[in-house]
Amino acid sequence: MGEPVKTLDGWYTLHDFRSIDWPNWKSISEEERRSALDEFFHILDGWNRTTEEEKGSHVISTVVGQKADIMFMILRPTMEELNEIETELNKSKLAEYLIPAYSHVSVVELSNYLSGEKSENPYENPYVRSRLYPTLPKTKYICFYPMDKRRQGADNWYMLPIEERRTLMRSHGQIGRSYGDRVKQIITGSVGFDDWEWGVTLFSDDVLQFKKLVYEMRFDEVSARYGEFGSFFVGTILNQEKIEQLFRIA
Amino acid sequence: MGEPVKTLDGWYTLHDFRSIDWPNWKSISEEERRSALDEFFHILDGWNRTTEEEKGSHVISTVVGQKADIMFMILRPTMEELNEIETELNKSKLAEYLIPAYSHVSVVELSNYLSGEKSENPYENPYVRSRLYPTLPKTKYICFYPMDKRRQGADNWYMLPIEERRTLMRSHGQIGRSYGDRVKQIITGSVGFDDWEWGVTLFSDDVLQFKKLVYEMRFDEVSARYGEFGSFFVGTILNQEKIEQLFRIA
Amino acid sequence: MGEPVKTLDGWYTLHDFRSIDWPNWKSISEEERRSALDEFFHILDGWNRTTEEEKGSHVISTVVGQKADIMFMILRPTMEELNEIETELNKSKLAEYLIPAYSHVSVVELSNYLSGEKSENPYENPYVRSRLYPTLPKTKYICFYPMDKRRQGADNWYMLPIEERRTLMRSHGQIGRSYGDRVKQIITGSVGFDDWEWGVTLFSDDVLQFKKLVYEMRFDEVSARYGEFGSFFVGTILNQEKIEQLFRIA
Amino acid sequence: MGEPVKTLDGWYTLHDFRSIDWPNWKSISEEERRSALDEFFHILDGWNRTTEEEKGSHVISTVVGQKADIMFMILRPTMEELNEIETELNKSKLAEYLIPAYSHVSVVELSNYLSGEKSENPYENPYVRSRLYPTLPKTKYICFYPMDKRRQGADNWYMLPIEERRTLMRSHGQIGRSYGDRVKQIITGSVGFDDWEWGVTLFSDDVLQFKKLVYEMRFDEVSARYGEFGSFFVGTILNQEKIEQLFRIA
Amino acid sequence: MGEPVKTLDGWYTLHDFRSIDWPNWKSISEEERRSALDEFFHILDGWNRTTEEEKGSHVISTVVGQKADIMFMILRPTMEELNEIETELNKSKLAEYLIPAYSHVSVVELSNYLSGEKSENPYENPYVRSRLYPTLPKTKYICFYPMDKRRQGADNWYMLPIEERRTLMRSHGQIGRSYGDRVKQIITGSVGFDDWEWGVTLFSDDVLQFKKLVYEMRFDEVSARYGEFGSFFVGTILNQEKIEQLFRIA
Repeated sequence: MGEPVKTLDGWYTLHDFRSIDWPNWKSISEEERRSALDEFFHILDGWNRTTEEEKGSHVISTVVGQKADIMFMILRPTMEELNEIETELNKSKLAEYLIPAYSHVSVVELSNYLSGEKSENPYENPYVRSRLYPTLPKTKYICFYPMDKRRQGADNWYMLPIEERRTLMRSHGQIGRSYGDRVKQIITGSVGFDDWEWGVTLFSDDVLQFKKLVYEMRFDEVSARYGEFGSFFVGTILNQEKIEQLFRIA
Repeated sequence: MGEPVKTLDGWYTLHDFRSIDWPNWKSISEEERRSALDEFFHILDGWNRTTEEEKGSHVISTVVGQKADIMFMILRPTMEELNEIETELNKSKLAEYLIPAYSHVSVVELSNYLSGEKSENPYENPYVRSRLYPTLPKTKYICFYPMDKRRQGADNWYMLPIEERRTLMRSHGQIGRSYGDRVKQIITGSVGFDDWEWGVTLFSDDVLQFKKLVYEMRFDEVSARYGEFGSFFVGTILNQEKIEQLFRIA
Repeated sequence: MGEPVKTLDGWYTLHDFRSIDWPNWKSISEEERRSALDEFFHILDGWNRTTEEEKGSHVISTVVGQKADIMFMILRPTMEELNEIETELNKSKLAEYLIPAYSHVSVVELSNYLSGEKSENPYENPYVRSRLYPTLPKTKYICFYPMDKRRQGADNWYMLPIEERRTLMRSHGQIGRSYGDRVKQIITGSVGFDDWEWGVTLFSDDVLQFKKLVYEMRFDEVSARYGEFGSFFVGTILNQEKIEQLFRIA
Repeated sequence: MGEPVKTLDGWYTLHDFRSIDWPNWKSISEEERRSALDEFFHILDGWNRTTEEEKGSHVISTVVGQKADIMFMILRPTMEELNEIETELNKSKLAEYLIPAYSHVSVVELSNYLSGEKSENPYENPYVRSRLYPTLPKTKYICFYPMDKRRQGADNWYMLPIEERRTLMRSHGQIGRSYGDRVKQIITGSVGFDDWEWGVTLFSDDVLQFKKLVYEMRFDEVSARYGEFGSFFVGTILNQEKIEQLFRIA
Repeated sequence: MGEPVKTLDGWYTLHDFRSIDWPNWKSISEEERRSALDEFFHILDGWNRTTEEEKGSHVISTVVGQKADIMFMILRPTMEELNEIETELNKSKLAEYLIPAYSHVSVVELSNYLSGEKSENPYENPYVRSRLYPTLPKTKYICFYPMDKRRQGADNWYMLPIEERRTLMRSHGQIGRSYGDRVKQIITGSVGFDDWEWGVTLFSDDVLQFKKLVYEMRFDEVSARYGEFGSFFVGTILNQEKIEQLFRIA
């Protein structure tokens, strides 16, 4: 049996993608639309307070193309809170015009592949804490995709010795770090929570860096032989003003 | 031909996942919603009486993410009873606001891989009976996923000699048992009943243990080489008060 | 080129699965429901007369779980008759509340793998005729699944010499026959008619025997290496009284 | 690089499958239905004139099972004409009751595998012309399925030397020709036009011959090792009277 | 680790496929249809001005078959502009009758496989610029399909040495160039942006050339062993007059 790597686990994460039901959104009155948005911004105020209290983080973005129109990425200390937030959103007026398109349930994850033996408790290390309980960056663009490690014939990640996995991941991590000044990445683990094993969320002010990073990684053995990828979603991060603009009907 | 393992089979099991049709649920009057919930709680009373009479068990939970909003897991002595319960639920007022999302039909199963020869009738053994006809635990969280044993090229579970399967399953079972104080698991067999061969239902007060258990098992050869997994559903178990809360429109 | 096995072909077969549109069925008046059922029972009378005249057979069942709610399995001497029956059903009032869920088009098939050379015309053999033009058994439970023989790398059924296929099928058939007193099976061929190559319909008074039979067969090389399986549907067979009960709105 | 075979290409072909929206078709008045059918028969008159002028051909059929209810197969000298016919059909009243179910865009294709070197222009050969610009046979039954040649590991059609492909196709063609008196087949190429590489349309007065032909071919190496098949559609060819009958509401 | 090829990246590209909701489009008044088209042509005027200013390009086409009815292909200097164009289109009256069918998000890409070492900045080379920021050709026909390079067992493109990839791509490119006078092709990269790794858009006045080119390439090792293909869409390019015609209800 391959030795499983230890993981450090932080905030629970929901990626919630919706398509806007434009015909029905347009068919209601400006007053109704205003009231739906006001109610949503009230919910958003609560999310912002949670961020200020450092009890969670969130980001809202568009999605380019037809896979979805808007994405909510929400981090919280417990799975139950994610569930409550999802239900509150679903009961809102705005949600009547947001058609579910895709979702991913996971938890922020750091793997120990790259670390040596530690005697200290990593959950008390400030750097580790800043990565397990992150404040999501407010870059211009965001990218999300889920992925698996392959288990197929001779290309079976889970049958590799841990030393080989560690060596492979180290090289893989170097590519990520070489983009560190242009792309921030958050890895969330979804084994046991959702259909794919991980979610990758990338943040950058230059959308082209997403392509360059993912393409360069694809030639690395970890992706080339062992990576299985789901759908890719790319969009721009929205502040309150841009949310107003997105939903505005002239 | 590989020697099939003998199974012990207990209660028939239906996992029934539904999405709540929020816009329509909100559009009806509070009285109509009250009456739909009352009718559902009346059905639930019947289920509870069956549990008291030890003629079945059930659990109701949320589902985090868009795959579903609510899950009913129901155990009964006959397949026919499951069918009747499903039909009664479908005819209820509440069901008009519950969109089918996924279901799994199976029977509680114990495999004999781990047991030696037995002269006694296992169906009369009280421990075996408690596992074949279980009272579902009322933990905080629940997780469900269906799975197959792989039949692909050199990785064909069903072509392995029974001794090799027994050895592999013993190691696999040890992981499960090492989580025994934190995670209860119920295996249900669905060969001949549904598209996947088994369903796995996990119960825990700590949702993170689902991830740790499933991830650790994935490095075990039984999963690494021979496991094929369907969708994973995770949520919180609901008592009547929390069902009220889930469906409450402020 | 592998030598194809000869087949004997009997009645054309339609498996037609539907989900009941409960909200709309409940929304119409009791009179309308009565009239829809009466019209359907009139159609059913015709089917019953055909059975009496030994010009076909049929069975109606529930389906447990969300894949469908009701299944019509209909056998007729010509494909055209199946088409007419389907169209008549589709034009009926009841069909307005039956949402198509799945269907399978095939013909009752006996393969010659197990037979030696024959000088007589098998189509005149009474035993063969009783299997090609069967009266469907009225057991308590029914199970249906479609399947293919695999053509994948080294596991390619259609590249095997006919002697090897014959030997494999003989062992496979022995499992089936060992269940003969508990499970009746009807094999229908769908090559050229539908997406899967065969349909398997099982009949039993003990639903657990479906699981035991299919599971035991899965360890046999024919299934283990060469079987590809579609969806499994299981349910209880309905007589007119039980159809009434299924559609009754209290 | 494998040497590509030369193809001869004839009329562009659209296979257009639709499900009839029975509830809505029944809900309109007999006058509206009459007027929708009259308009469709007017369109059909145009198609018939094109056939008489030998500038195209078409056939309309039912489809048995739930995959569709009606199929239009239309051949024209240009892709643009197919597009116009599709748009005219879509704008018709009848099309409001025809739900798109499947379509296939292709061009009648003859491959040169079986021919020797030719000095003459095959497009001037009357026999070749009759096959590139065919008048579709008016048999009782019709069968359609799309297919690919496999490119998978050691089973990669496109990596075979042209001599080997020619030898394999010759044997494959012999099966087809041995059914020539019972089954007419039209091969249409869809590389670059649609998701599958070819469409196969079979015509016969005996529906069982479709099964026998496709099954026998499956043991031939071209299909056994190199064939990938899409959905199979089978039905009966409709003349105007039978179209009337199909759409008639008693 | 395989050495990744460098890419040159030009304008961001959205392929947006829609099905026309004919029943509802027909159900509104001629005035409403006129006003919806006028609003759309006003949007189109903006796109045309952008083309004149050489700040983007676009083409609108039909799609033959049921996969879609109309396709918008839009090129812009930034991803954000694509997002804004998509949102403006979605908010338009016409979009209420355009059902999303498929989309692809990418960026015009030139790979360096075929080039030697360069000291100059390729982004200042006029020929390179004309290909990175192209004015889309106004041919009669257009074809689009997405594709991946395969990573499967022994057929893993991303594990090949760069020299081997370069040699393979050179041969592949020769086929493309041999069609250069009949087919223009634009390659757009979508790694990190969408589910497939590339999009291929072909332009020609002779639709048959799409089939000949794609079929010939399929025998080339790059496609034969390493190509994975998505859906193929083919149609005719529409000018304003033809758009009028497409949406005209007699």
